Amino acid sequence: MLHAVIMAGGSGTRFWPRSRRDRPKQLLRLAGERTMLQRTVDRIGPLVDRDRILVVTGADQAVATASQLGELPPHNIVAEPAPRDTAACVGLAAGLVASRDPEGVMVVMPADHVIEPTQAFHASIASAVAILAQDPAALVTFGVIPTRPETGYGYIEKGPPLTVGDGAIAHRVARFREKPDLETAQEFLATGRFLWNAGIFVWRAATILDEIKTHRPLLAQGLSEILATHGTPQFHETLERLFPNLERVPIDKAVLERSAKVAVIEAPYRWSDVGDWRALAAFLEVDPAGNAVQGNVVARDTKDSILVSEEGGLVAVLGVEGLVVIQAGGAVLVARKDQLDQLKPLVEGLSGAGFSAFL
Amino acid sequence: MLHAVIMAGGSGTRFWPRSRRDRPKQLLRLAGERTMLQRTVDRIGPLVDRDRILVVTGADQAVATASQLGELPPHNIVAEPAPRDTAACVGLAAGLVASRDPEGVMVVMPADHVIEPTQAFHASIASAVAILAQDPAALVTFGVIPTRPETGYGYIEKGPPLTVGDGAIAHRVARFREKPDLETAQEFLATGRFLWNAGIFVWRAATILDEIKTHRPLLAQGLSEILATHGTPQFHETLERLFPNLERVPIDKAVLERSAKVAVIEAPYRWSDVGDWRALAAFLEVDPAGNAVQGNVVARDTKDSILVSEEGGLVAVLGVEGLVVIQAGGAVLVARKDQLDQLKPLVEGLSGAGFSAFL
Repeated sequence: MLHAVIMAGGSGTRFWPRSRRDRPKQLLRLAGERTMLQRTVDRIGPLVDRDRILVVTGADQAVATASQLGELPPHNIVAEPAPRDTAACVGLAAGLVASRDPEGVMVVMPADHVIEPTQAFHASIASAVAILAQDPAALVTFGVIPTRPETGYGYIEKGPPLTVGDGAIAHRVARFREKPDLETAQEFLATGRFLWNAGIFVWRAATILDEIKTHRPLLAQGLSEILATHGTPQFHETLERLFPNLERVPIDKAVLERSAKVAVIEAPYRWSDVGDWRALAAFLEVDPAGNAVQGNVVARDTKDSILVSEEGGLVAVLGVEGLVVIQAGGAVLVARKDQLDQLKPLVEGLSGAGFSAFL
Repeated sequence: MLHAVIMAGGSGTRFWPRSRRDRPKQLLRLAGERTMLQRTVDRIGPLVDRDRILVVTGADQAVATASQLGELPPHNIVAEPAPRDTAACVGLAAGLVASRDPEGVMVVMPADHVIEPTQAFHASIASAVAILAQDPAALVTFGVIPTRPETGYGYIEKGPPLTVGDGAIAHRVARFREKPDLETAQEFLATGRFLWNAGIFVWRAATILDEIKTHRPLLAQGLSEILATHGTPQFHETLERLFPNLERVPIDKAVLERSAKVAVIEAPYRWSDVGDWRALAAFLEVDPAGNAVQGNVVARDTKDSILVSEEGGLVAVLGVEGLVVIQAGGAVLVARKDQLDQLKPLVEGLSGAGFSAFL
């Protein structure tokens, strides 16, 4: 049976000031009526019973997360007492899936990506399931054909081709490469052998638990102690006590880079991790001057800007170019588009500057 | 006896979004605890009894104006039913002064200028009074030595010198020149004979009424009908009915340009009409990067900008230069400093764009 694990953590700095500590990106309506998280549930919904969709989030965000997911059973929202990166998250979720369905297959997805069209996403999950039918111990990843030498993503180097049968393009993985420098990224693109790691995975819960045990025995030990109490009154206390001490490591680094059983399917869909405000332009109508606008905005002699005003507010711009202007929750961000990589340190500095109310 | 007439009209576009229709520039605390209007009253206060300070404002702004001037008798706040420029305003005020004090001398001042130091301003008023002692029918203006070929101001060309006795530099006025084009303004500066018209005047109320009668008989006629009912229950109704039909003309153009009795005193003070947000930088501390900051502001890699956040809000800027960023009343303005002359049309367009709530 197919299960879904939606990873819904996130610190909420890259969409500041709209995103806040208790309202990270996945809980935002960046465009349309549904939040990123709700869209992620909507996307997997046709393939997985609501009851088998687990959402793993942070303790700070658990209430807000649950309130957006009234359609899920409340116990399917799992709150991590502290953020421990994706290996601990995936391992905990795998244990919960396996305890209910020892042969269960899990689709692991971040809650804050955009994937379109949904049918192509569904087809790619079917391809992954087909690979697991041939090789039940496979770890299936998804790779996006890179369109620029992005230094913020992990890359997957394709190995020998795999035949899936449904026409999907799949390969064994030769190796994983974490965020490269620009020169290396350019080389990757030139070879044609590299894909962006979309951070979406399909595997049997039992397989990933075995792999964690093999490559990260201490992590597996901790998870196992926590999971041993699942279904008992001690579970919450054990989770609170042990989870914060688990090794903080991404599942890619902990397991995928070390395993020989990894396959990659070329994503047949358009994918974006909606990394920062610049990505929002893809959701919005862009006017002839190149401005992407949301909410009440008046722009005069302005071009190539992203202009967002909250409900009830107004943003007026005059004679500017290449800016991001965001009004939300009493705060205003005005940034040069090409300086948005400095937003994280800016937001992290708010607390020290006495502005923690805006975090 | 000395009277003061403070002209406190104004549409409130140039300091948008902080200034609004019912809260124009003179009612703002641009810096410090007192508003521009209050600072104007404070400035003339040592020379003129509170009871002899008239404030002429618009009907829309009368309540807000009165509430800032608790120290004045309420009947000293005069509300114009409609804006009719300065000739009607000065004429009405002159009539009110003359009806109480036929020999009264009035100091006419806009409510939204910055003048420093106050002692120098007081000295200049004493010089004007000294000129009136020699020539009771004189119309005394004040001229600021121009520091740039400003095209937004009126200019006064100096004629033969006048001896005041107290050391003040004064001249007869050769002629007035309304806002010149840039080339003309440059020529004015080159001659050394031109001063900026500060818009501050000293004259006997009876004199200016006579001058209006001479040069603008229809306007004088209308004013006279209104003033005839002053002190009767009909005054308000007459004002409401007749004032909106008075000729709309500046006092400079209506009278000063046509009179032979005009003198100009070189202003011995620093003067600014605080024309737009750029002028605010003069009130604020400017940091080493050239940023003038007011309220809660976080600036990173930002220079030569004016950054203002309202109470309880936050403005964060990243990687920008030469901008004006103002957050006030739910609205945000982001403008290139050198485009601020386009703010007026932007604000005037708000209504048509459905944003009249922000006017």
